[in-house]
Amino acid sequence: MRANRYTYAHPHPAVTVDCVVFGFDNADLKLLLIRRKTPPFQDGWALPGGFVRLDESVEAAARRELSEETGLGELYLEQLFTFGEVNRDPRERVISVAYYALLKLSDHHVQAGTDADAVAWFPVAKLPKLAFDHELVVAHGLQRLKAKVRYEPIGFELLPGKFTLGELQRLYETVLEQSLDKRNFRKKILSMKLLEPLNEYQRDVAHRAAQFYRFNRRRYEQLKKRGFNFEI
Amino acid sequence: MRANRYTYAHPHPAVTVDCVVFGFDNADLKLLLIRRKTPPFQDGWALPGGFVRLDESVEAAARRELSEETGLGELYLEQLFTFGEVNRDPRERVISVAYYALLKLSDHHVQAGTDADAVAWFPVAKLPKLAFDHELVVAHGLQRLKAKVRYEPIGFELLPGKFTLGELQRLYETVLEQSLDKRNFRKKILSMKLLEPLNEYQRDVAHRAAQFYRFNRRRYEQLKKRGFNFEI
Repeated sequence: MRANRYTYAHPHPAVTVDCVVFGFDNADLKLLLIRRKTPPFQDGWALPGGFVRLDESVEAAARRELSEETGLGELYLEQLFTFGEVNRDPRERVISVAYYALLKLSDHHVQAGTDADAVAWFPVAKLPKLAFDHELVVAHGLQRLKAKVRYEPIGFELLPGKFTLGELQRLYETVLEQSLDKRNFRKKILSMKLLEPLNEYQRDVAHRAAQFYRFNRRRYEQLKKRGFNFEI
Repeated sequence: MRANRYTYAHPHPAVTVDCVVFGFDNADLKLLLIRRKTPPFQDGWALPGGFVRLDESVEAAARRELSEETGLGELYLEQLFTFGEVNRDPRERVISVAYYALLKLSDHHVQAGTDADAVAWFPVAKLPKLAFDHELVVAHGLQRLKAKVRYEPIGFELLPGKFTLGELQRLYETVLEQSLDKRNFRKKILSMKLLEPLNEYQRDVAHRAAQFYRFNRRRYEQLKKRGFNFEI
């Protein structure tokens, strides 16, 4: 056992980071989880994360842990919430700062790193039991995603470069956990002038081939900044 | 000097809380500050706050520090942001969780407590130099307030039970840091069905006596939940 070498006049908590990374594969909203190598909750599924070092910012710690455990790099991380209840970790008092990221599954390959036994994407609707209070952390992440859908555009980070209106609707339905009327959805989305139709259609599909669209990046950034109210 | 009695196998950061408390006195948006009794930044103005104890949640620490330093109790605190840069405190590595509250100046009396030399409300437009990175923390608080104005009603926590449309407009103008067209503002606010006119008018004013309004609490909560887009 390592000697206790760091001493303080007052008791100090430990600080960790946890990363809530959502991905979308055109059917399911998925969450990135790792299988823990060490106790507590050994072999249990958990959010990627770990202890903050004293010589790195909290956000840098989130990036480092995500990279070490899952191979992911260069993500846009947004701070989600800090979890500060007293008994959330059986080892000692641990305060955790959670971060949140959205990505396209097709653009990122993940692989278990040094501190994780396995890494996998789970559909948000079918998550395994999670270590620590990570179910609560994930609930906060989903709540943030739902709130965002209401007042700013989402999808740029989650959908591929071109997508059908059906795929976009599926994303909204998955995040909002409710089905939407197809005609109303299309009318609202198209009226925002957020989408550009492409002269390209689905191929090899049994049903009528749907047209592809892409986001107008300038308009997307504008709406993101200005906000709107997407009433459903 | 107290002996260093707390030892750990790994280095631990200290964790503090900082409270961004805004109040409105019908003319100015104000911020609650305390004057520090001890180094660093001794005699400097700072946000109320202090170290999190191991036996209290982070939010409980914010409430305790606010009460100890300013006499305020029973506030609705919302978590704002966690500040985790490496060198933000000259004493040691300190990560700070910031909280945010809105209150009516008329309802709360503040007084310097045990850990503060003085406590005072400063107009947000004329803040003194602040200790640590508290100017950055305050900037985050103002940004949150500005964002909220855009997609949910504010005012219930900041205005007295009855107020004129002019006072409400002044609150919006102060938060948004821009002047608004009187007619447009009234039209938009009244169309939300958020306000109830009272059969009561200002007295002893030189100009034409303005009517008083109050918030319809049920509608306020509904709009807060559902959101809207207040375009200006």
